[in-house]
Parts: sequence; structure tokens; C-alpha cells
Amino acid sequence: MTWQLAQRAHKMNPSVIREILNVTEKPGIISFAGGLPSPLTFPVEAMAEATQRVLSQDGRAALQYAASEGYGPLRDWVAHDLKKLGMHVSPDQVLITTGSQQGLDLIAKILIDAGSKVLVETPTYLGALQAFTPMEPNIVGVASDAEGIDPEALAQAHQGEAARFVYLLPNFQNPTGRTMSEARRAAVARVAAERNLPIVEDNPYGDLWFDTPPAASLASRCPDHAVYLGSFSKILAPGLRLGYMVAPKAIYPKLLQAKQAADLHTPSFNQRVVAEVLKDGFIDRHVPTIRALYKSQCEAMLAALAREFGHDGHGGEAGPETLSWNRPSGGMFLWTRLPEGLNAVDLLPQAVAHNVAFVPGAAFYASEPDPRSLRLSFVTATVEQINTGIAALAATVREAQAKLSKK
Amino acid sequence: MTWQLAQRAHKMNPSVIREILNVTEKPGIISFAGGLPSPLTFPVEAMAEATQRVLSQDGRAALQYAASEGYGPLRDWVAHDLKKLGMHVSPDQVLITTGSQQGLDLIAKILIDAGSKVLVETPTYLGALQAFTPMEPNIVGVASDAEGIDPEALAQAHQGEAARFVYLLPNFQNPTGRTMSEARRAAVARVAAERNLPIVEDNPYGDLWFDTPPAASLASRCPDHAVYLGSFSKILAPGLRLGYMVAPKAIYPKLLQAKQAADLHTPSFNQRVVAEVLKDGFIDRHVPTIRALYKSQCEAMLAALAREFGHDGHGGEAGPETLSWNRPSGGMFLWTRLPEGLNAVDLLPQAVAHNVAFVPGAAFYASEPDPRSLRLSFVTATVEQINTGIAALAATVREAQAKLSKK
Repeated sequence: MTWQLAQRAHKMNPSVIREILNVTEKPGIISFAGGLPSPLTFPVEAMAEATQRVLSQDGRAALQYAASEGYGPLRDWVAHDLKKLGMHVSPDQVLITTGSQQGLDLIAKILIDAGSKVLVETPTYLGALQAFTPMEPNIVGVASDAEGIDPEALAQAHQGEAARFVYLLPNFQNPTGRTMSEARRAAVARVAAERNLPIVEDNPYGDLWFDTPPAASLASRCPDHAVYLGSFSKILAPGLRLGYMVAPKAIYPKLLQAKQAADLHTPSFNQRVVAEVLKDGFIDRHVPTIRALYKSQCEAMLAALAREFGHDGHGGEAGPETLSWNRPSGGMFLWTRLPEGLNAVDLLPQAVAHNVAFVPGAAFYASEPDPRSLRLSFVTATVEQINTGIAALAATVREAQAKLSKK
Repeated sequence: MTWQLAQRAHKMNPSVIREILNVTEKPGIISFAGGLPSPLTFPVEAMAEATQRVLSQDGRAALQYAASEGYGPLRDWVAHDLKKLGMHVSPDQVLITTGSQQGLDLIAKILIDAGSKVLVETPTYLGALQAFTPMEPNIVGVASDAEGIDPEALAQAHQGEAARFVYLLPNFQNPTGRTMSEARRAAVARVAAERNLPIVEDNPYGDLWFDTPPAASLASRCPDHAVYLGSFSKILAPGLRLGYMVAPKAIYPKLLQAKQAADLHTPSFNQRVVAEVLKDGFIDRHVPTIRALYKSQCEAMLAALAREFGHDGHGGEAGPETLSWNRPSGGMFLWTRLPEGLNAVDLLPQAVAHNVAFVPGAAFYASEPDPRSLRLSFVTATVEQINTGIAALAATVREAQAKLSKK
């Protein structure tokens, strides 16, 4: 055998979602499966103009190697922007990353030894599980409900062997769309500060609120105990692969060394173009248009679900014999639960036969998945497709229930 | 203590070169220290035109999430381009990376366990040492000379505990500028195939030949035993962070999984812009202009060295009482050796006082550095600066020798 793989390589797996997306990418299918932002929101013209300005004014610098920390004016912008979340950040604490996915990879590298305990919400973002797995942690799912992670369960999970960190996505979480309540934020920050539990706070969706902005970030409440991850993927465009992390001084230098070894620096071209797009308050004009679009799409999906399933879906009230769903206050996702006796993994091929697709929720659990859960994205399909797709989903569920009652 | 670092984090270090560059970036200094391509070679106009075409024709796709493998037309271009090195590569074997530095990171992740033996040339590329170090290998430097690594020493180093791979940079190596001879390539490929020793072949400089293209790649000689790394940093621009790897089917899926976990994919925007730049044979018109520039700069530096030191510098012929240097046939670097008794680390501050900078060679050794060695880049400074800078270097050396003889 020529190639001897590292132990950790045996633990890596192809993304389940990626494989699902392959299956569901047949023509004519209405997909609620992907986690892609709506391309209608990409600021193509602003990008084209900014690119021309950057290349004509400072093209050679934009195409040269650059500092691993990131482009100064972009770091300044990030530090200033985070005031909206109650954060007081120096640009020196900002590290520009190649998407916020890279932030997760760097964190895993500097904080996880083989066997280290890492705490996550139940369910949690699949990409984080994938980023942590190569460093061979013992990932422990902590009890969570519609308000987010349970602070008491969190404190308990940190007892005995200390966890290296808890990974949290407080705003419009992927996959559930849920938002952590103010009370939970306060309680979680208290646990972190009192029990020395580091928080990795991931906030790719925080700007996508429908009616009111989310509460202050966890990092604003215990800045020395938190690394904060942000992203331009959902407010500008993911194809730029531009994210950032804000780290306390205790670990910034190690993150920077890991960053340098990983890809030297994030493309200077992209950083300068985005800094050029952002100046003069572009985001303040642009992001409200995304919010309005996503809110109307979410409302369309909620209305279609209510129409097709004959109730307003909320939580357990709907009863175990029908589909239930939550009501996100922002973001891109809606979390639903199939009627008793059905299983989202088994249902998917039947849904695809009806020309509609979703992601079974099982992919998002560190352990013991809820087989009835599934994730629906409401941002990529049009309202017409949402209506057709939800009708197809309802037909699929009714058919599966009918088969079930025959058995 | 809030943050408990992973074991591997303690082994990471700030880049020595990075710190040297900080010291040497004072105004007015002539720096031969950096590894930056000449910004004069960046195709700013072609980039501007390609960006406009990509954004106007297919902007929303260019700004969306994309496949982890990379953009199809770019993978096709790479597979086709590698024919020049004698390689028969399917586009399915090409993985687009965020700079070829990321390729080194992915290789480390899937092939290195803590304590694994990894073989490198003496000296070797510092960035590779930095990429491998977080996975805690036992890096072993193998005897090497002006023709490259010694095949017998290589075979011997692989005995006993098998090495996970040998990392080689056959063309115009960083830091030495040397090129592996045809005989060495054949012998090294034989060792790899006969003794099941995987090769990681890094070729960022191969296109930058002065008079004749380099011999066929190692990967072309033992394709199942080699991962090949390429880069657009030196033929287009490093600020794009665009590289690629070509891997045998035995390990491609694991590299892909590691890639996906690391940053999902390399920016689709950059990939599409470069694919647009590359079509219609742009590289065939563009790269000869870089070759001509770098060749003339290299000749200027060789002439300045001969003028200042009074001999043609070659190898040991120059004698131990003077500076010696090699004569690269391409690339960006020239490798020199100080007169007996001098030490490049100690000499650097004295050189900076004379307004000239270099990188002490010690940074590039996995073990037992040659303290007299130093690296000079001939591509960033102008010919006038080369003349002034080499004169300053000669003055520094003479001064240090004079001090030495006084002791």
C-alpha cells in the first residue's frame, strides 16, 4: 500500500448534504434542500464597479501577497460594524478568513486534541461538525429547545472533564431557524464566565432579521471567553469566500499562525473589492432588500404549509398526526417535524418522486437524531415554486401516512 | 485558564520570514528578502476585462456557492496544461485549492499522524514546514546537493519506519533556486515506485524557466505514487490565492473531504475570472514576458555579484574566504554562502544598517541549518536597486570580515 492515511482521515466523511444535493439536482425538482442564499440578492453591479475601481486604482497591490491578518480597511469595517451587536472590538482582534468555514477549521486546529470534549447545540450546523471532526474531538450534543441551548444542561456537560468550547449559533440557526432568547443568552454567558467555558459564536445569519434585530451577541457579554465568527456570504455573496473571526488576545496569535499555515492569507483581491463595495454605507441600503425578500418568502412558505396541512403548525399544538413547523424571525430556514411514524430519510426519495426536496434533519445531530425532523430553506425557490413544492410535500406526507395505516 | 490549547498549537510558531520582513520593511531599504513576484508581471488589464465579462455574463453563478472540487473549465484547463510536463491527467483528479499552500495543509491533514516520518530536501520550502507542523510529524531532512535530493539517502531515510511521503520542489526550488537533474528525477521516481514512497511534488515556479523548460515532472514518472501541486501565483498573481492539486484516485476523495471541511470551496468568483483570463491561450503570450523579465533581473544580480566580489561565484570554486552563489536556470531565487566565519542571522542587522535585506538560510532547514547560507530574490527589485543592493551587501560582508580578522 503506497498511501498510509492518518488516523483522522478515517473519521472524515463525505457531506451527507452534498450527497443529498446530488440526488435532488434533477431537472424540474423544487428544492428546499440547499443552504444557498438567493442569487437575486447578489450585488452584481456594485461588485463590477468596485472591481474596476480596485483594479484601476490599486490593481498591483490587490493582486500581490498580503498580510495573513487581512486587509486593514476591511478589518476596520468589521470592528466598527460589530458595535451593532454590543461588541467593542479592536481591528487588531479581527482575522479575515476564507469563509467563516475556515474559522471553524482554525479553531479546531488550535483547540481540539484527539478525544477533547466539544459541546454543540442539538441539532447543530453540519459544516461545524465536519470542520471539527478531523481533529478527532468527542462531540457532545447538549439539550436544546426553541429558545436555544439549555444553560443548566450546558453547565452539567462542562463538568468532570472540561469542554474545550461550546459551539453556538444564536441567530436564526442552521438548521432550525430558531433564535436564542435574551434570557438564554444571559444565562449562557454567565456559565461561560463563571465556569471558564469558551464559546465559539457563529453568526452568519444575524443580519437577516425580519422585524427586529437579534439581541446582543454572546461575545459582547463575555468577550474574553468567546471567539466570534462572521461572514459576508449571506449579506453580499458566498462565492467570494469571505468571513472573519474576532478573537481575544489570549488566542489570536495562535489562530493567526494556523491561518498562515493554512492558506497564507485570504485573497487580497476579494478583500479589497469587498472593502470598496462596503464603503459609503452600501450594506445599510443593500441588506434591507434581502430582509424584505426573505421575509416575504418565509411568509409564503408558512402560508402554504398552513393551507396544505390545515393548521398553523406551531410546535406540539399541531398534534402528532400531522406535520408541525416553527416560525423563524429571520434567516433562511424553517424546521419541521413529520407526523408520528414517518422518517425523513425514508421520505426523501418519495418526495423527490413528487419533484420536491428537503434535507432530513438527522444530518445535523451530533448524536441520537430526531428521525422525524427535516429542514426547509425558503430563500432560493420563488413564491410560485414554494406553493407548488409545499403542495407536493403535503401529498408525499399524505401518501406515506396512507401506506403506514395500511400496514 | 479559559482557553486550553491543543498540543499541536504549542508546536506552531510565527513565521521567521514574516518577522524578518517586518524588520526589513523600513523605508529606503532594498529588499532581496521577500518571496513576492514582481507586480509588474500582474495582468491587471486582462483581469479587469475578464472580471467584467464574468460578472455581466454569469455574475450570479460566479458569486454563489460552488462545488468543492473546483470550477469545471478551470479543472479542464489544468489537466490539459499538464501535458507539457508529460502528465496524463483526468480533470477528475484536479482539486482547485486556495493557493497551493492549502494543498500542503490538506495533505498534512490526511497523511500525517503525530510522530509520522516525513522526508524533505535540505534545505526546503519554509511554508511546507509550517503547513506540516500542526499535524506533529517527525520531519527528517534528507541529504541534497546542487542536483536535488540524494536518491540513496532518500531510500535509506525511508527504511525502518516508512515515511508518509517525501516533499520535493524539483524546479527552481525555494529557497535555493536549484533544479533537479534528469538523472535524479529518474532515480527518485524509481525509489518511489519500488519502495512505495509517496511523493508530494510542489511546482510553483516550473513555468519561470529562462532558456529551456524543465524536465518531465516526478508525477509523470510515477503517477500513482505522487500528488502534484501547482499554482497561479507566479504566472498570474498571488493575491488571487489560486492553486491546484492533482491526486491519484486512491487519495482524491479524502483530500476532497478535507477541502470541504477547510473552506467549502475556493472562491468561485476567482476561479471563473481566471478561467476567463486563461482561455484563448493568454498564458502562452503572458508567461514569456515574465521569463524575460526574471532572466534579465537574474543576470543583473549575477553580474553585480561578480563585479562586487571579483569572481564568478560558482560553487566551492570561489574559495572559503569569499561569498559564493549558484546560477539558477529559472525561478525567483539565488542561493549564496557567506565566507567562512560569518553567520547570516548575525549579518542581517548589519546589512539592514547598509539598507539591504535578505533571508538567512537557517529558516529553511528541517534540522542542522547551514548558518552561512542566505537567500536572495532577484525579481522584486529593479536592476538599479539590484546594483545598489549588491554593492551594499558586499560592503556589509567586507566590514564583517574586517571585524572578524581583528578578533
